[in-house]
Amino acid sequence: MILTGKRCEEEMNACGIIVEYNPFHSGHAYHVQNARELSDADVVIAVMSGNFLQRGEPSILDKWTRAKEALENGVDLVVELPFVWAVQSADYFARGGVKLLQALNCDALCFGTDSDKPIDYEAFGRFAVENKELIEKTYKELGEKHLSYPQQMTHVFQRLYPELHLDFASPNHVLGLSYAKENAKYTHPMKLLPLKRKITQYNEEIIHQQFASATAVRVGAFNQTWQELESVLPENTYRDLKTGPLVSWENYWPLLKYRLIASSEEELRGIYQMNEGIEYRVKEMALKAESFTHFIELVKTKRYTWTRLQRLATYTLMNISEQEIELGWKNSSLRILGMSEMGQKYLKEQKETASLPILTKNSKKMSSYLDTGLKSDRVYQLGNSRILEQSSGRFPIRIKNA
Amino acid sequence: MILTGKRCEEEMNACGIIVEYNPFHSGHAYHVQNARELSDADVVIAVMSGNFLQRGEPSILDKWTRAKEALENGVDLVVELPFVWAVQSADYFARGGVKLLQALNCDALCFGTDSDKPIDYEAFGRFAVENKELIEKTYKELGEKHLSYPQQMTHVFQRLYPELHLDFASPNHVLGLSYAKENAKYTHPMKLLPLKRKITQYNEEIIHQQFASATAVRVGAFNQTWQELESVLPENTYRDLKTGPLVSWENYWPLLKYRLIASSEEELRGIYQMNEGIEYRVKEMALKAESFTHFIELVKTKRYTWTRLQRLATYTLMNISEQEIELGWKNSSLRILGMSEMGQKYLKEQKETASLPILTKNSKKMSSYLDTGLKSDRVYQLGNSRILEQSSGRFPIRIKNA
Repeated sequence: MILTGKRCEEEMNACGIIVEYNPFHSGHAYHVQNARELSDADVVIAVMSGNFLQRGEPSILDKWTRAKEALENGVDLVVELPFVWAVQSADYFARGGVKLLQALNCDALCFGTDSDKPIDYEAFGRFAVENKELIEKTYKELGEKHLSYPQQMTHVFQRLYPELHLDFASPNHVLGLSYAKENAKYTHPMKLLPLKRKITQYNEEIIHQQFASATAVRVGAFNQTWQELESVLPENTYRDLKTGPLVSWENYWPLLKYRLIASSEEELRGIYQMNEGIEYRVKEMALKAESFTHFIELVKTKRYTWTRLQRLATYTLMNISEQEIELGWKNSSLRILGMSEMGQKYLKEQKETASLPILTKNSKKMSSYLDTGLKSDRVYQLGNSRILEQSSGRFPIRIKNA
Repeated sequence: MILTGKRCEEEMNACGIIVEYNPFHSGHAYHVQNARELSDADVVIAVMSGNFLQRGEPSILDKWTRAKEALENGVDLVVELPFVWAVQSADYFARGGVKLLQALNCDALCFGTDSDKPIDYEAFGRFAVENKELIEKTYKELGEKHLSYPQQMTHVFQRLYPELHLDFASPNHVLGLSYAKENAKYTHPMKLLPLKRKITQYNEEIIHQQFASATAVRVGAFNQTWQELESVLPENTYRDLKTGPLVSWENYWPLLKYRLIASSEEELRGIYQMNEGIEYRVKEMALKAESFTHFIELVKTKRYTWTRLQRLATYTLMNISEQEIELGWKNSSLRILGMSEMGQKYLKEQKETASLPILTKNSKKMSSYLDTGLKSDRVYQLGNSRILEQSSGRFPIRIKNA
């Protein structure tokens, strides 16, 4: 596509999406295509988790491979969601994602929803921002400590804003609500474009029809059921999974076990979110566990969910302190993983106006202490000797528009 | 051997030896036999390094296996030299070894020497203790900073005590001198029994005749040249090496690399003996090195010898601080790895008089922060999934006297 004349001088429109692509599958392609159509945007910008993901696990394929898959399936610009935002509960994950899309002046945000009834996300966002104190007060008043946080929040909104029919129980639904709340904080909020997901069972393990869930794809890849996968994956993802290297938490289990064994309880207390005495429990169970899965099973309690423990395990593996997380929040930047010609053009347009620094190259001089991104990339690389260098000297992937 | 009547009531005699047994070979058997004969002792007590050794490396076979090999070849009592004394330069290694033998009221100390001329070790020991300041003064006066420390000390003694013909250049010779110096500090020094070693080339890599060096045996075991090894090893060592599990530094390289990558320079400075800016160098080279051997090659300078770097690597792997080392020095104890009937009898005799606590069982409650021994055992176990539990619930090996 050659851009000439008047079109070049007009301001381009961008639709943002916040993604993980673990790995990219046909459901994601459907999302990208709909984001473009619903928004009528010139470019689709994906803010994508790096090598460690929201649920506290390493990505099956590295971030560069996943960025390339996205670009080859219609995304114009892939920006890395920094580790400090990515490996977090929905609220912080959404905060980081929206922050980056806002910094790139996106006009719309398209996200998946599991809800069968249409929800006015924008109204919810505004209400949540404007009534923050009332929501907190009601939450305390209800005092339903025996319920999970999502269940409690569902009750809060049933009382305060029953017309919205909110249910905080589904993970993807919660993400949509978090996006809406974060977006409403900005002077120029993005237009919200919820998209009904094709697969609602997030943890579905059976591959069916054209749309397989990411979880099902990962299980298939580790079990090498290639024939089944070929029919439900874009060609490039299928090829990438077959070639590998693939990693799961088990690849990092020897390193995590070693850290838990060689660290004192006092040192473990310095790890982000390692508190309430859980340091004793993880240290004890590290000696008993025979695998990462076994370890989480042993440590798991009602208070500590699987996902919360996986995130804690990731912070421990990364040897990351609260101070480093907070520093990372302050120093967010736009690390570009890849772009199409259109994406590159949009990025050029944003050079002057983007509210965060745009990084197209990783400097070798970045201190691993200051840059959790560099540290997480290097630790990720230890999972398999075939994983390529993830930081130093890597430039954004560039592809031509189809 | 049944002990009855008068002999039981007499005080037994003990000859100490300070060893590593990496692994036990025919030269060591020769040493044990001579220790017994030269001292005319009832029991031979070996103070043996645990799972990490003086030169800063993991032992090829675990400490329990090596203790059993020693007991089956004539040693009566095997006591573990604690990590904080074992992984050290000759001076500290000797200090720990002599401290433990003294605590067990040994009458003699038999050690190998490479020297062709007979040396009056006891005279040297007394002189070194009584003239500590003069030696230091002379060392400074000579000011031969361009020479290695052993070379400088050789010159110091050439000036102060030429009759001794001392040469500090050979590692085993230096150990003998260190034993002598430490021993002379005690009110009741042990009788020193130097024994001419059969193999003087410490790093000899060719197996010859009946006496193979430990280095040559390890090389043979990793290369699986079993036929060659069979003729030079006691039956049990031969069998143990063939069965394994065997470990070398390479087994721990992924863990060390991970620690170096995931630690900030500031954290690395908290490691014992990590100073003078070497933390920047090790962190940089960890990214470039393809193996442990390659790593040491890359970090090595004139100032940092191979052995010094291996020790630093061991402290780093163990995540050990100066404070922990000093605490370990203060809290030395006699951890019994194994005993013959005679050894057990001797130990019983010592219960009242031993000047350090005797441990025959590792408590599960020992904090890894306070007990470097427990930590080093657990980290050692990570080197190979076939290595058995090294601490909790392990009792001393007991063998019947031949």
